[in-house]
Amino acid sequence: MSPPILTLTTDFGDRDSYVAQMKGAALAILPDANIVDLCHRVPAHDVSAGAYLLESGYSAFPPGTIHVAVVDPGVGSSRQALAVETEHYTFVAPDNGLLSRVLRREAPLHVHQLTVPRFWRGATRSTFDGRDVFAPVAAWIARGVPLADLGPAVTPAIDAPRVTDWRVSGDEVSVLHVDHFGNVVLDVTRAALEASLGRPLVAVDDCVLTTARGAICGPYPNYAEAPEGVPFLLINSANYLELALRDGRAIDPFNLRIGDRLPLALGERARRERSTDIEAT
Amino acid sequence: MSPPILTLTTDFGDRDSYVAQMKGAALAILPDANIVDLCHRVPAHDVSAGAYLLESGYSAFPPGTIHVAVVDPGVGSSRQALAVETEHYTFVAPDNGLLSRVLRREAPLHVHQLTVPRFWRGATRSTFDGRDVFAPVAAWIARGVPLADLGPAVTPAIDAPRVTDWRVSGDEVSVLHVDHFGNVVLDVTRAALEASLGRPLVAVDDCVLTTARGAICGPYPNYAEAPEGVPFLLINSANYLELALRDGRAIDPFNLRIGDRLPLALGERARRERSTDIEAT
Amino acid sequence: MSPPILTLTTDFGDRDSYVAQMKGAALAILPDANIVDLCHRVPAHDVSAGAYLLESGYSAFPPGTIHVAVVDPGVGSSRQALAVETEHYTFVAPDNGLLSRVLRREAPLHVHQLTVPRFWRGATRSTFDGRDVFAPVAAWIARGVPLADLGPAVTPAIDAPRVTDWRVSGDEVSVLHVDHFGNVVLDVTRAALEASLGRPLVAVDDCVLTTARGAICGPYPNYAEAPEGVPFLLINSANYLELALRDGRAIDPFNLRIGDRLPLALGERARRERSTDIEAT
Repeated sequence: MSPPILTLTTDFGDRDSYVAQMKGAALAILPDANIVDLCHRVPAHDVSAGAYLLESGYSAFPPGTIHVAVVDPGVGSSRQALAVETEHYTFVAPDNGLLSRVLRREAPLHVHQLTVPRFWRGATRSTFDGRDVFAPVAAWIARGVPLADLGPAVTPAIDAPRVTDWRVSGDEVSVLHVDHFGNVVLDVTRAALEASLGRPLVAVDDCVLTTARGAICGPYPNYAEAPEGVPFLLINSANYLELALRDGRAIDPFNLRIGDRLPLALGERARRERSTDIEAT
Repeated sequence: MSPPILTLTTDFGDRDSYVAQMKGAALAILPDANIVDLCHRVPAHDVSAGAYLLESGYSAFPPGTIHVAVVDPGVGSSRQALAVETEHYTFVAPDNGLLSRVLRREAPLHVHQLTVPRFWRGATRSTFDGRDVFAPVAAWIARGVPLADLGPAVTPAIDAPRVTDWRVSGDEVSVLHVDHFGNVVLDVTRAALEASLGRPLVAVDDCVLTTARGAICGPYPNYAEAPEGVPFLLINSANYLELALRDGRAIDPFNLRIGDRLPLALGERARRERSTDIEAT
Repeated sequence: MSPPILTLTTDFGDRDSYVAQMKGAALAILPDANIVDLCHRVPAHDVSAGAYLLESGYSAFPPGTIHVAVVDPGVGSSRQALAVETEHYTFVAPDNGLLSRVLRREAPLHVHQLTVPRFWRGATRSTFDGRDVFAPVAAWIARGVPLADLGPAVTPAIDAPRVTDWRVSGDEVSVLHVDHFGNVVLDVTRAALEASLGRPLVAVDDCVLTTARGAICGPYPNYAEAPEGVPFLLINSANYLELALRDGRAIDPFNLRIGDRLPLALGERARRERSTDIEAT
């Protein structure tokens, strides 16, 4: 039998031993756990970015994986801690919206608060729930403890927008994440775009994003087929719309920050915007 | 049976393959080793910071864990390499003070120099003892080689201050580490503070730290119960006194560097300092 | 039986979940894989640096290890993907030169293109071959799939200079990598130097590197035996010539960049250069 897989997503960075302490606390309960780092560079206290990064990575893991996520500005407060079981995965995280994006893709079957100290590391919660609550609870779940033993069933206080919420006419899209290569991830998925458009995305001028540096077209099927030296749109590997640049960092020429909003047009309207832009230049 | 757990603490960073080479060298001897990164962002050659980071993380791991630590400005010199067995753990590290903080919490039962090349990777030591000595020796220990086979028993040349060494009257405390969230770790433990005070820390004005920006009180039980927007003191998850700020980076408004010393008062004296400060403001 | 070992070398950094997605994709096929990070801080799209970092680390791992390397500016283009079997290891990487340095040390026994979608994650390749092709294929190889099943045998289109190619008379050496400690790795190996010299390197003035800040001698046997405060040469742990400085960052006083070329003299000629330099100062 293969060892249970746990993943960790946090804003703990790599300057300290915080991530290691979570691993130690899990291994103390489940010595053969296979613990994989999903991402520890979520910007400090940025629950929204954490929600995206978790969503971008969780589904590559095999069914049965337990995903632990800790971006937890409210540690020590009355915010609740949750374990959520879906068809393929279990998620363990604070109830602060960190699971909002995965839970619009994975329907929660069982949601329980983590209130039973017997499954924590020590009986009290202090400053480090990652080590003292979330990691131990995940290890106990991997050992077979049912969610119902961990605390009462609840409805999560999660802001969980539907995947098709994004609507296009006159709509804007916001900057969600800038990746290691300088690609700019926009907060709209392929599914939302296709729901708005009423058909699959097929042409490289199906989407037009308006920026201070002109109209940007896409989605191109991949980096290599896009024009050289010109920013373009792409559906990225997490199925989000992305502003990219071949052989360069798309973010650099733009003055964009997380949360900035930009106009996005689709289909016929996109094509009109594009030709207006071409005439103007 | 669960695979043996090894942790690695180094100043090797992440730009190179140095950490991977240590793992490869251990796996070549112990193919099912579970090797966990404790921290690789110890500042280069900073033995004191390495000693703190190792101490902050080691005890979260289950008994039997072998902790390897390599912050080793003297590599290639006559400094000795050590394996130290305590009740619950084994530590493998250069004899340069890197183990000083853990060994004031874990009494050493057996201390041996690493002088027998049979347990190294190749017969000579050159520029990379992490890969060629420390990792292989740790793997052999995990395979059951007794410390006595690795080299002669010794008394470590370790500067190992006692945990209760810190004394309060008129005393100062030094800045030990700044973590990923901007929290400032001060070089005094809860145990030392309580030994000085002669009683447990109970009130949020039991400690007063004097800074250029006024008196700072604590310890508060956690971040959420501390006042907003005002720096405060806390006992951190490694049991050290810490200067923190809710929803912000405590280090930013202060002009503090590692090693800086600040006056710290306890108990009644702390309360007097605090009221003086309040009157002054 | 020990779990199969896979290593990952990429330019993916640590801000995203890309590395985790590769691990998830491999674990979905081989749940007990032991996946080790070799290095993820290869500079973005820098195949040459990736080739060096892979070479610097791969041989520390036990025979049977599968090394996966993804620095892949041509993802989505017609560049091929390869699996290469050598006597001790298997390498999985794009056919873009990333394997050029390891393949001058490890003779390729079998080289196959990765063209059979049955071993990929999904039938199409899009923007993320690391997750969708390289990691799954490596996991299938570890499960015993023969290279011949993955695609046709090919001759790699790899620029693979011979290890003894470097010739000395009047020659220059280029800056290959700057490590975490500020050591400057030069693109010439001990083997190439000794082939040029016609004998082993024995004296600390066998090599003289000419820089804007004077002549630099070596190789010294290790850091501790080198003079203090003066830059010197060393054969590093990957067997490359390195410009180093005791207790400091060698790179800092020099204005060197990756790819810069500097004159390097060996043997008698080195000694003449050195005395000229000493006379001049």
